[in-house]
Amino acid sequence: MLLGRGVVPTATPVVGVDDLGLTRGHGCFDATRVRFAAGVADIDVLELHIARLHRSAAALGIPCPEPAAWHDLTQEACRVYAGDGEAMLKLVLTGGGETLPAGPVAYVTLTEIGEETFRQREGITVATLSRGVASDAYADAPWLLGGVKTIAYATKLAAKEEAHRRGADDALFVSTDGFALEAPTSAIVVRHGRELATTPTGATGVLASITIDRIAEAAPQEGYTLTHRLFTPADVRAADGAWFVSSVRGVAPIRRLDDVDLPTDTTGDDVVRRLAGF
Amino acid sequence: MLLGRGVVPTATPVVGVDDLGLTRGHGCFDATRVRFAAGVADIDVLELHIARLHRSAAALGIPCPEPAAWHDLTQEACRVYAGDGEAMLKLVLTGGGETLPAGPVAYVTLTEIGEETFRQREGITVATLSRGVASDAYADAPWLLGGVKTIAYATKLAAKEEAHRRGADDALFVSTDGFALEAPTSAIVVRHGRELATTPTGATGVLASITIDRIAEAAPQEGYTLTHRLFTPADVRAADGAWFVSSVRGVAPIRRLDDVDLPTDTTGDDVVRRLAGF
Repeated sequence: MLLGRGVVPTATPVVGVDDLGLTRGHGCFDATRVRFAAGVADIDVLELHIARLHRSAAALGIPCPEPAAWHDLTQEACRVYAGDGEAMLKLVLTGGGETLPAGPVAYVTLTEIGEETFRQREGITVATLSRGVASDAYADAPWLLGGVKTIAYATKLAAKEEAHRRGADDALFVSTDGFALEAPTSAIVVRHGRELATTPTGATGVLASITIDRIAEAAPQEGYTLTHRLFTPADVRAADGAWFVSSVRGVAPIRRLDDVDLPTDTTGDDVVRRLAGF
Repeated sequence: MLLGRGVVPTATPVVGVDDLGLTRGHGCFDATRVRFAAGVADIDVLELHIARLHRSAAALGIPCPEPAAWHDLTQEACRVYAGDGEAMLKLVLTGGGETLPAGPVAYVTLTEIGEETFRQREGITVATLSRGVASDAYADAPWLLGGVKTIAYATKLAAKEEAHRRGADDALFVSTDGFALEAPTSAIVVRHGRELATTPTGATGVLASITIDRIAEAAPQEGYTLTHRLFTPADVRAADGAWFVSSVRGVAPIRRLDDVDLPTDTTGDDVVRRLAGF
């Protein structure tokens, strides 16, 4: 579903060789889950994802269509979507022409969520990988685009592939000073009793997770608190439970970190899923 | 000039919303200079750029068309190119379909080199910017894609823009342990007498520069040596001369680094240009 053009088949070329999104990865995106039932689409917190997309676009200096335009694109895409069950909605904005005076390309896609994602909601194995940066590397360095959801995800894709080579489902990025940061496309949460903890954004370069925000908002109602603080992979292993959380896969319990099995935290699994809306 | 399709206007959409090049910056490119005179194209060391593109593609796990296909695409693009003077030739390879069984998209583009590039060959001002990583961050971490010329250049573009905001033409990335690394799209060379020095590749994540290789090969004939070693911005200021070198812009003498004017090194300018083939 392409702004200014309407519905096109997924394979249709929509971006030219002069677009900075393609030539430089200069563009941004956001993604959330849609549940289809009897032809009705239930979209998870779309307004929060549109707001984050606007923040990403502002950080990149790309003019972003108004929220209403994204809502309209999304509604139209959901209307023509043929599938049932769960789908991933992506909102994408490219940087526009590098040498030609062409504007940004804005589009949304809907992709069916497959069995592998459902399996990972029951538990994942994780390999720790260096992110190559200290935990304060992004302080006062906005050009490093910490916390900006750009489409330049090549190293994130490569890290996932390295995790697969190591026999794991996903990767946990670790800073050069030894702290857990985030996964390529998820935030990390650990539980110690009634405290849930996640890594801070800002100087760490960690993306501000919408799922984390939802957990933080709902936690007090269940007698939990959510804390932002630094912790290590050893702390993850010593926690009552640990999860990767994200808007599409939802809550993925970490069952193994490198070569160490983690305890199955049934209480925590239930709580974190409920708080996250999964 | 698109593999399997032929010549298309620059604005023509060629990549679909499912291509990993667009969705993840999972793709690679290379670029060199072409000089047109009386309808004849003189292409700088194309075979070396095709070889580096093959290395980038291998690091990303993307199947790359054979060198002959890239040579044919380039020849055809040069044949139909209407301009005269200098142009930038880009060879681009995307990652192909993320969910659809679509192969990589391979294409070349020719873009006229503008006045601003010619001006920068006479001298540039440079701002130092943190790269956020230590000088050994890429050792044993291939998933960080150090030295791989991916299309995921968003932070490089953002760094150039930050340099412009600071009133400089270009940026010099500095490691967290204080060493000069490279520019967003150039390598750095300094001169001390008959020694030219540049930063090492490998653990630094610095791209293996084809222009540096050309300088290294030609240097002994002029009584110079090229050394790969780490040095600091203070060392750059203390050198006889300093240059950013790259395949398209060529040799850009650094005339100012942050708020310090550098000496004009006429001898060095001549030598480095000659060694680099500019």
